[in-house]
Amino acid sequence: MVEFIDGGVTTPEGFKATGVHSGVKYRSLDLGLLRSEVPASAFVGYTSNKVKAAPVQVMMRENSPTLTAVVINSGNANALTGRRGIEDAMTMKEVAAAELNIDPVQVGVMSTGLIGRFMDMHKVRFGISKAAGELGVGRKYDNLLAEAIMTTDTIKKECAVRVRLSDGTMVYIGAISKGSGMIAPHMKVLHGTTLSLVTTDAKLSPAFRPKWQQILDDTMNMVSVDGDQSTNDTCILMANGMAKGACADDDPLFMEALKAVMTKIARTIAIDGEGATKLIEVNVRGAKDETEARKAVKQIINSPLVKSAIFGSDPNYGRIMMALGNSGVEFNLEEVRLVIKGGEMEVPILDAGAPVFQEERSVEAVRMAMDNKEVTIVLDLAVGEAEATGWGCDLTYDYVRINAEYST
Amino acid sequence: MVEFIDGGVTTPEGFKATGVHSGVKYRSLDLGLLRSEVPASAFVGYTSNKVKAAPVQVMMRENSPTLTAVVINSGNANALTGRRGIEDAMTMKEVAAAELNIDPVQVGVMSTGLIGRFMDMHKVRFGISKAAGELGVGRKYDNLLAEAIMTTDTIKKECAVRVRLSDGTMVYIGAISKGSGMIAPHMKVLHGTTLSLVTTDAKLSPAFRPKWQQILDDTMNMVSVDGDQSTNDTCILMANGMAKGACADDDPLFMEALKAVMTKIARTIAIDGEGATKLIEVNVRGAKDETEARKAVKQIINSPLVKSAIFGSDPNYGRIMMALGNSGVEFNLEEVRLVIKGGEMEVPILDAGAPVFQEERSVEAVRMAMDNKEVTIVLDLAVGEAEATGWGCDLTYDYVRINAEYST
Repeated sequence: MVEFIDGGVTTPEGFKATGVHSGVKYRSLDLGLLRSEVPASAFVGYTSNKVKAAPVQVMMRENSPTLTAVVINSGNANALTGRRGIEDAMTMKEVAAAELNIDPVQVGVMSTGLIGRFMDMHKVRFGISKAAGELGVGRKYDNLLAEAIMTTDTIKKECAVRVRLSDGTMVYIGAISKGSGMIAPHMKVLHGTTLSLVTTDAKLSPAFRPKWQQILDDTMNMVSVDGDQSTNDTCILMANGMAKGACADDDPLFMEALKAVMTKIARTIAIDGEGATKLIEVNVRGAKDETEARKAVKQIINSPLVKSAIFGSDPNYGRIMMALGNSGVEFNLEEVRLVIKGGEMEVPILDAGAPVFQEERSVEAVRMAMDNKEVTIVLDLAVGEAEATGWGCDLTYDYVRINAEYST
Repeated sequence: MVEFIDGGVTTPEGFKATGVHSGVKYRSLDLGLLRSEVPASAFVGYTSNKVKAAPVQVMMRENSPTLTAVVINSGNANALTGRRGIEDAMTMKEVAAAELNIDPVQVGVMSTGLIGRFMDMHKVRFGISKAAGELGVGRKYDNLLAEAIMTTDTIKKECAVRVRLSDGTMVYIGAISKGSGMIAPHMKVLHGTTLSLVTTDAKLSPAFRPKWQQILDDTMNMVSVDGDQSTNDTCILMANGMAKGACADDDPLFMEALKAVMTKIARTIAIDGEGATKLIEVNVRGAKDETEARKAVKQIINSPLVKSAIFGSDPNYGRIMMALGNSGVEFNLEEVRLVIKGGEMEVPILDAGAPVFQEERSVEAVRMAMDNKEVTIVLDLAVGEAEATGWGCDLTYDYVRINAEYST
């Protein structure tokens, strides 16, 4: 049984973390370090944006099957920085490796912040040295790392679970993620990029890679705040095996636990979308295949018209069908079913492709369902068996304000 | 030489128009009628949204090579209305045909307004009969038609040109379009759908069809206000040949004139995007092929992050590159060039893939360029010769307000 507990990335055996102020940002913590006692099997998901930040390029090129540490800075994304940016990302790895007395290839690197500015490496070097001397275990250190990478988020995207695997070993999984936070005006702030670190003391082999991809596809890759994918998105899973159990690659209990952690993180990122007041969950079923189900979900959660209608609790469900129509996926308009849920309300909208109602009273029911912190759209395409779920948020005045004033 | 003149859809020889109040809307004109003295060669572009409104389905099924009249209602989109909607659209054609004493297949039909409500056919029938008795020629009648289809637009999307063709014939082209208008709160209003009527007294044969598609692809199909394509978009070109010249299919002067008209309409739709304060023109060059150039343009003009940055004159050009990276098109990051223009300013941002500047003074120049009613982004992908241009608008508080309150 998967059990959520109060914990973070240092909850699994053998992980230490910290966060320090290097000076890249004016005041707040801006440099984080995570280290495992022993080399951990590493599984990494990267942004598929063709413009990749320097740290992403470096990590992808090295593609190390194990990592022992990860260094992360905020305040500067080290993106669109050309050859100099690549050198800076390499230097971050080298400095951390020297401080921790490990091979540079064993150090992962992530950056988030403004695009198109060179890193101040003097400050970053200083920060890494400082962090290396201050690593620790426990909630205090989880929080320091969290602060260093997620200062602008309004909700902490952190969780931990424990689960007893099939062979009897108790293992822990901890995760932290930085997503699009709501932003105080007139500050230089982070944006959009999601950086995630997941630690576990379970043992995994390189064969686990496709399963990690599957979990990412079902969770992180189904979150959308604005459809704009960052140059820096990176999600690292480190499994150091220090719980001493058997290899968990094929253990369904481990999969269940990891998926629970990643689903929680994904939902929290959506809830904390820039300016968001509501979580939108979209469940598409009856699709021809999984790819089509995902495509329909994404078209709906990315539609500015759907998102702003939900912000205003405007019962304009035609926009959901318009978004479906634009997704290009196959559906049977004569059989489509659409339900909107929120709070205690569950309102059928379309049945067999036709509006269930025309009267004002029913319109009011849709409005009431939409007037909740969490609104769920269920859409049955009536052409197959495949299903997908995704998460997004409403489009609000604050989204516009935040993004019109980002770098100023 | 193409000359813009004060005119509209009744400027070309042989076209009459009007607009009346049928009662579908509370007060304003809501039903328009256009008629040609003789059957006109008809070329129609439809929404590619898979959820098509009833009038679109009916028009596509009949696919008539000639049209003599077009009937248009606003206030109700007749979309998501199932079999009954199809019957209603057919009835609109039949009633108009009977009134005008022509074959129903000679009548085009378009609707715009709320989705998912049945038409009040009693009112619509009344409106069509009334309109048929009040057709006329001249600016007064252009305006009545305009009012009936575009009451919520803040800018009239109408123009006319004259051009002397290669064979010496003087021909006229008139156009009117209804796009996404800014909306007074708490009213039931139109949305998003673009309906366009283009009239000309030039003579065209059915062979002109691919050229019409090319012009639509270069103009109307390169406009995006929010990336959400309507269920109702329809663009009808009627050529009645009453100028008595030779067939203009292959006359480059006619193509130039028609493209000038459609470009003007397209730009005006973007300028009048919901809540818009600025026109954004995106020109992508150096692309591998035209499809890729268009794809890159659309990804950039649809990016909420780019749109909100331009609203706030926020010099966050990294977002343009992020959008390019997400478009999936090929580019050479080592050679990419990016320039932002606005007013008198023309600011190079990236040259050979690297930032041209780092200093605050230059950031200020980008801000000044963005602080104009019209902002142009020029992006050279450095992998080929193809080029495309598109138009969009900024994402503003008013966009959110309008769309959060649309149907309420």
